[in-house]
Amino acid sequence: MIRMYKILEQINSPEDLKKLKSNEMKILAEDIRRFLVDSVSKTGGHLASNLGVVELTLALHTVFNTLEDKIIWDVGHQSYVHKILTDRKSQFHTIRQYKGISGFPKRYESPHDHFDTGHSSTSISAALGLASARDLSKDKYSVVAIIGDGALTGGMAFEALNHAGQSKRNLIVILNDNEMSISQNVGGLSNYLNKIRTNTVYSKVKGDVESLITNIPAIGKTVIRTAGKAKDCIKYLFVPGALFEELGFKYIGPIDGHNYSEICKVLKNCKNISGPILLHVMTQKGKGYPLAEKFPDKFHGVNPFKIETGQPLSASTSVSYSEVAGNTLVACAEKDKKIVAITAAMPAGTGLSNFAKCFPKRFFDVGIAEQHAVTFAAGMAASGYKPCFAVYSTFLQRAYDQVIHDVCLQNLPVVFLIDRAGLVGNDGETHHGSFDISFLSPIPNLTIMAPKNGWELQKMIEFAVQYHGPIAIRYPRGSAMTMENVTNNPIALGKAEILYEGGKDALIIAVGHMNTSALKICEALKEKEIGSTLCNLRFIKPMDEAMLIKQAKNHKKIYVIEDNAKIGGVGEQIQAMFNNNKIFKEVYTLGLPDVFVEHGDVSTLYHLYGLSIEEIAKKISEDFESKIIKNIRIR
Amino acid sequence: MIRMYKILEQINSPEDLKKLKSNEMKILAEDIRRFLVDSVSKTGGHLASNLGVVELTLALHTVFNTLEDKIIWDVGHQSYVHKILTDRKSQFHTIRQYKGISGFPKRYESPHDHFDTGHSSTSISAALGLASARDLSKDKYSVVAIIGDGALTGGMAFEALNHAGQSKRNLIVILNDNEMSISQNVGGLSNYLNKIRTNTVYSKVKGDVESLITNIPAIGKTVIRTAGKAKDCIKYLFVPGALFEELGFKYIGPIDGHNYSEICKVLKNCKNISGPILLHVMTQKGKGYPLAEKFPDKFHGVNPFKIETGQPLSASTSVSYSEVAGNTLVACAEKDKKIVAITAAMPAGTGLSNFAKCFPKRFFDVGIAEQHAVTFAAGMAASGYKPCFAVYSTFLQRAYDQVIHDVCLQNLPVVFLIDRAGLVGNDGETHHGSFDISFLSPIPNLTIMAPKNGWELQKMIEFAVQYHGPIAIRYPRGSAMTMENVTNNPIALGKAEILYEGGKDALIIAVGHMNTSALKICEALKEKEIGSTLCNLRFIKPMDEAMLIKQAKNHKKIYVIEDNAKIGGVGEQIQAMFNNNKIFKEVYTLGLPDVFVEHGDVSTLYHLYGLSIEEIAKKISEDFESKIIKNIRIR
Repeated sequence: MIRMYKILEQINSPEDLKKLKSNEMKILAEDIRRFLVDSVSKTGGHLASNLGVVELTLALHTVFNTLEDKIIWDVGHQSYVHKILTDRKSQFHTIRQYKGISGFPKRYESPHDHFDTGHSSTSISAALGLASARDLSKDKYSVVAIIGDGALTGGMAFEALNHAGQSKRNLIVILNDNEMSISQNVGGLSNYLNKIRTNTVYSKVKGDVESLITNIPAIGKTVIRTAGKAKDCIKYLFVPGALFEELGFKYIGPIDGHNYSEICKVLKNCKNISGPILLHVMTQKGKGYPLAEKFPDKFHGVNPFKIETGQPLSASTSVSYSEVAGNTLVACAEKDKKIVAITAAMPAGTGLSNFAKCFPKRFFDVGIAEQHAVTFAAGMAASGYKPCFAVYSTFLQRAYDQVIHDVCLQNLPVVFLIDRAGLVGNDGETHHGSFDISFLSPIPNLTIMAPKNGWELQKMIEFAVQYHGPIAIRYPRGSAMTMENVTNNPIALGKAEILYEGGKDALIIAVGHMNTSALKICEALKEKEIGSTLCNLRFIKPMDEAMLIKQAKNHKKIYVIEDNAKIGGVGEQIQAMFNNNKIFKEVYTLGLPDVFVEHGDVSTLYHLYGLSIEEIAKKISEDFESKIIKNIRIR
Repeated sequence: MIRMYKILEQINSPEDLKKLKSNEMKILAEDIRRFLVDSVSKTGGHLASNLGVVELTLALHTVFNTLEDKIIWDVGHQSYVHKILTDRKSQFHTIRQYKGISGFPKRYESPHDHFDTGHSSTSISAALGLASARDLSKDKYSVVAIIGDGALTGGMAFEALNHAGQSKRNLIVILNDNEMSISQNVGGLSNYLNKIRTNTVYSKVKGDVESLITNIPAIGKTVIRTAGKAKDCIKYLFVPGALFEELGFKYIGPIDGHNYSEICKVLKNCKNISGPILLHVMTQKGKGYPLAEKFPDKFHGVNPFKIETGQPLSASTSVSYSEVAGNTLVACAEKDKKIVAITAAMPAGTGLSNFAKCFPKRFFDVGIAEQHAVTFAAGMAASGYKPCFAVYSTFLQRAYDQVIHDVCLQNLPVVFLIDRAGLVGNDGETHHGSFDISFLSPIPNLTIMAPKNGWELQKMIEFAVQYHGPIAIRYPRGSAMTMENVTNNPIALGKAEILYEGGKDALIIAVGHMNTSALKICEALKEKEIGSTLCNLRFIKPMDEAMLIKQAKNHKKIYVIEDNAKIGGVGEQIQAMFNNNKIFKEVYTLGLPDVFVEHGDVSTLYHLYGLSIEEIAKKISEDFESKIIKNIRIR
């Protein structure tokens, strides 16, 4: 290691940067890139975005003192370089692992992290809050938000620009423009930024303008005078960032995001300008690692891979839920021309890439804009189409009002394909889909399903695109288990199915993919002579109350297994439903506790929260082996 | 009536407009304005915004055929004129009344209404959905979204502009610029629009520009050539809507929104231009009714009033919850300099006007931007301030992800003052605060309270601003009942209080202001010799489990009264908690059923859903008078 990172080995905190000679900074940047590739190739994580901000991060830590000045990384998956430079290099091999450092900025991790991020487009809002607090306290530190051009399409970023522009507060917003979200960017804003980028000549002619203005003939002068604001005209004519200037920002750029000295120079100037500044920095995603430069989307978030080839170390052989969703949608869309698919900047992640290829006119990537996505879907549904919005559970939180107000209130047939429901693993707190059952269940008109495996997801999608109202299907990250038809029960509205019948002790009600664990639990219980029945709920709403009541009466104790918060989850709903029906049986819920679940691999987290097969089987066995329940057992 | 509305009496549908002579249109506009004032002064409703769009609506119905062309009214409270012109004039006196027509566009009400609205900033998304559907179906009708300059500050409007700008679809967005939200507009966008408005000279000099460009000397030509896109330069120099043009819209305007002929002429042109158009129309809120022109914010939404004076017919003598919240916050802020207040364009509605006057530097109106408001608050909290965000329950749905991800995940001490929780009455489905308990309860770290009256709200706010983590207080629209200290129980974290002790039959657990009804119910039950205990829950989270369990054991049956959806509400949570604690008692919840609650006065709605004092008392009495429960009664 010592020989590999010649300069980086001397750097542990931003203070150490000051000791470097000017020619050493370039070597450091190379060291950091190699360190990133070496490390992320082993742990997995976000790569391309971090390779793109090496010089920018070095410059930020050169110009600012992040123990006082506050830097907010939008989304935050591009904060690896920042972490390496701020005392976390030695822990970097633990990134995103259980009890290791997080893949996102965390205030509890370092005094250099001033605001936790994870979801897109929050940084300007947070930074303006910090800047407003600073001004009230009459402090003087700098506040800097770094936001990508993709994240800038999120509506709340615009809300924040609008507020910040008027506030006149000292605030530096760095637009980290790499021409991408996770995939290609979309939208008018993207076109606009592209125009700025290609018109680099703008800055060159700036000097000439002054003489133009003073030399234009009388008629020109009149016009300028008439227009009233000659300065504004010049600005429009030659400053590329007019859009930002109109909102009240001073626009500077575009500058080369890989030229450390230039960034430092500009940042130093920015520190001395008052009012909100938008600094437009051009970076390249994946910079320095040729494979990531070539395929920045594939190297956005990666599993451990071989550096030479970029190939994953352990290739998944099974199909994922996302792929099943995408493939099923393609098959359905071939038969039904009214089916359209929508994504908020996640075509690959949600499995829709193939749909986009097959039906380009019926595929809509709306940018990082979940709110718009949902109401846009509602508009299409109101015109007789069947929009399917594929979205991660945690990001659907962004469109909660739109689901209620624009889709369900009008009872419109929008299909929500809720990917990454339940625990997602290494991305942690900000990315688990822990709440969707709780926040969707109270919405009138909405039907909610969860499939036990890939086969059932396919059948549920086929059911959903035929359905007449809003309908949601939640499924987890990762392997879809089996595409085999393990039962012969067709999907019927509000109907659960019995997956296992082996006795009258424990009734196990499992939600979605937890049925796979539950089946193994039933078999483990059998070995201990505890009889059980497994009910695959299928429909969270409307729930198969008749079956649950009937089964509950025949069993001694009931267990609900779900990968959602217990509060507002299926277990609570069943407990309430039983009480309403005067069924007084013990219901024990195995679900997520009332905490934000940390990062780590899913199996570790399941174990930790008592949701692994072993833990659940143990819990149930203990219940039935305890004296009290044994005594009341009737065989 | 016949003599009062000379022309309007002939108009029942848009078809009738075509029969009018050109000079009659002006009289019709006057008729409509008088009709609006006459009618709304009796029923209450939205006035100023509707007075502002009379000519615009007439022009829309002249140029478009709304049985085919689709017009989407953003927010929708300005659709009254549209309703009058589309077969609903004779029902107009029922507006916002129970079983009367809605105050917002409703697809079930008329084939002229193409999308339901109610919340801000949704229209462009919905319209783009409709336009995309139209294009897929190869239809030709026009799609028009009418959005206010206030609503344009909402992030999802920007998300939609961004998507629409790139789509190149035929779509007309009419910016109804009245320089206001409900109150004064804020933000950089507002400043920008103001600049356009005051630079009306732009359009005048447009002709001169062509000659300027051809006559500028060599150096000018070089610059223009160098810049590469002379057309763009001209646009920047003289087209005021560059911000919209950059996003891909063709900008037209600003035009006078009270000049019927001009609007018609421009709209006809718009119909024939392909691609997305932003038509900037200047209107005056309250136009034609001098009091509303002078005080447009006061006449935004009104109760029945006297036309001559503008004074409400029945002045409320009691203080409202909103006023208590505002006054308490002022008092707290006087003692604690770290307290700041935030509103999303609702300073008056949320009772913060006085705070804004007393502490202008500590008051933040961020525009119609709930998402930004919450993360901005998180930023201030992360810097040691105590931000209090006052927001209507239904609008907090807009910021659900930010509450989870930016506030609660970091356990930041933000106070959410959730106004209009529960049923709000005449604004109906889109405005009831029916879901907040359900969607907030699953969020880790969040404390949730509900006060029984104004006194308790004051005490809860005093408690909240001292608290170390995120905390929400939900309270209803309207009178704060009493500021008297009816008990002597101080607010203590997670502690409920007993409000009435009168026997061991029914345990009544009431949430927030429902305690006032519950107290009367207890007394009514006493007269029927049914003994009851009333528990004021105070804390929805954490809940006083110890007290509830203890009381439950001492009573025969338990009743929970809450003005929230039953699904995910307090009743369900208590049923689950009892089951978890092996308390098997019947719990009956009196809450909102799984439907979107229609509009109507609150007392009618309470009666309808069994939440009135009479209905609840009747339900409980019947339970105890029935044979079964009587027999097991122990005295």
